[in-house]
Amino acid sequence: MQRYFVAAEQFGDNEIRLTGEDAHHAVRVMRSKPGDKFIVSDGQSRTALVAVVEASPTLITAEIIEMLDAESEPVWSVTIAQSLPKGDKMELVIQKGTEIGAYAFIPFQSERMVVQYDAKKEAKRIERWSKIAKEAAEQAHRSRIPAIEPLKSWRELVQLIGNYDLALFCYEREGHAAHGRGIRSAIQEWRQSASPVSAVKVLLIVGSEGGFTDREAAEAEAAGAVLTGLGRRILRTETAGLVGLTCLLYESGEMGGA
Amino acid sequence: MQRYFVAAEQFGDNEIRLTGEDAHHAVRVMRSKPGDKFIVSDGQSRTALVAVVEASPTLITAEIIEMLDAESEPVWSVTIAQSLPKGDKMELVIQKGTEIGAYAFIPFQSERMVVQYDAKKEAKRIERWSKIAKEAAEQAHRSRIPAIEPLKSWRELVQLIGNYDLALFCYEREGHAAHGRGIRSAIQEWRQSASPVSAVKVLLIVGSEGGFTDREAAEAEAAGAVLTGLGRRILRTETAGLVGLTCLLYESGEMGGA
Repeated sequence: MQRYFVAAEQFGDNEIRLTGEDAHHAVRVMRSKPGDKFIVSDGQSRTALVAVVEASPTLITAEIIEMLDAESEPVWSVTIAQSLPKGDKMELVIQKGTEIGAYAFIPFQSERMVVQYDAKKEAKRIERWSKIAKEAAEQAHRSRIPAIEPLKSWRELVQLIGNYDLALFCYEREGHAAHGRGIRSAIQEWRQSASPVSAVKVLLIVGSEGGFTDREAAEAEAAGAVLTGLGRRILRTETAGLVGLTCLLYESGEMGGA
Repeated sequence: MQRYFVAAEQFGDNEIRLTGEDAHHAVRVMRSKPGDKFIVSDGQSRTALVAVVEASPTLITAEIIEMLDAESEPVWSVTIAQSLPKGDKMELVIQKGTEIGAYAFIPFQSERMVVQYDAKKEAKRIERWSKIAKEAAEQAHRSRIPAIEPLKSWRELVQLIGNYDLALFCYEREGHAAHGRGIRSAIQEWRQSASPVSAVKVLLIVGSEGGFTDREAAEAEAAGAVLTGLGRRILRTETAGLVGLTCLLYESGEMGGA
């Protein structure tokens, strides 16, 4: 069934309103007419099954038939901190990360970052990334749209590490057999040492094409992050976060199991 | 360090030869000159550190300095069987699946497949996919290039299921809370029931955009596959195989841990 995310003020007690591109999509693409049902979420806590009352390409009003449980969100909130990659790779990270179940994305600058950062383009870029996250969340039937944070400096990112229950710093050094500790060892050691919390907040820190410097690794570790590897193959920057996220959700019980 | 895959006949006892695009890349892009070192693999069992003896844009000869252990291949061989997706999504599956550690890829036809299959394009397509697998394997520092099988019919795929130690059929049905058993439960139950084998062969079966029919699910199950889900979010076809592969390698011990 089709899903739409709407702003909180469009989500009333008894009815909801679709406007803009969503109304256009519902009428022009989905051919919605009175009586048709779809699912609406405010992207935070409320999700409802609704039926169309009136439909035009600029405004759809629909009555709430039933409130639904927001059952599709992972128990562990995993934020992917991604050093800005080249080209449109950040779009792939956001689209696939949202599907798999990321909680939020923090783009940041690091020493070996290959791209030139252009502050003038920032607002437009975040708008585009937010749109990709919204569409991917709708498609994946999520009840929450992951937040896209404004670009952080390395200093700002390091200061955020302490806000998380677990921060993993993905660090692959060619020629070093160990690649640090594997992510499964890192998660399991943390679980054994930490006091149990129900809603675990994880920060997964991924470098750009150029990787991280030893200094950055040392600073992240000093701030409380755990250096960790993602297996014996060298992953591209846009793949690492998706693999790390999958490992975390697997370990947290999202895929069944003990 | 740069890596190249060469055919077995280019890999001698004491020296190796780079030809064609690889020689061109080494000389024109990497500016290789006598004495420079790189790594060469025959894509099967042999990997060596070599030093350039003579370099031209059409032929490079290099002497073998040291044979290296092929240490980057996963212990579990995971083959991704992917119902042909739209556009260039199969390329993403092959590129990222090779990075993460897939053993082979089997494209196949299923009932709800959206694309029209064009047999005349098949040879060209497999050539292109094989090139993507080779480049991704070099980039990821793998010692083996995953095989790309010719397109199979649904019947042919079902007959292959019995050749694997474990076959997982990814089956997501909207509105069904359980989505079958989660993949972690499926793997753990199989491990408890199966007699231990050292080199596990797994087949991961993924539908195209339209998903699978109930009949296909029943036929796969009858042939020995386990119906399994990949979490409570609906993954796009090109994401499902990568997530399933990551879960399998995580469980097999590739990321450290118990």
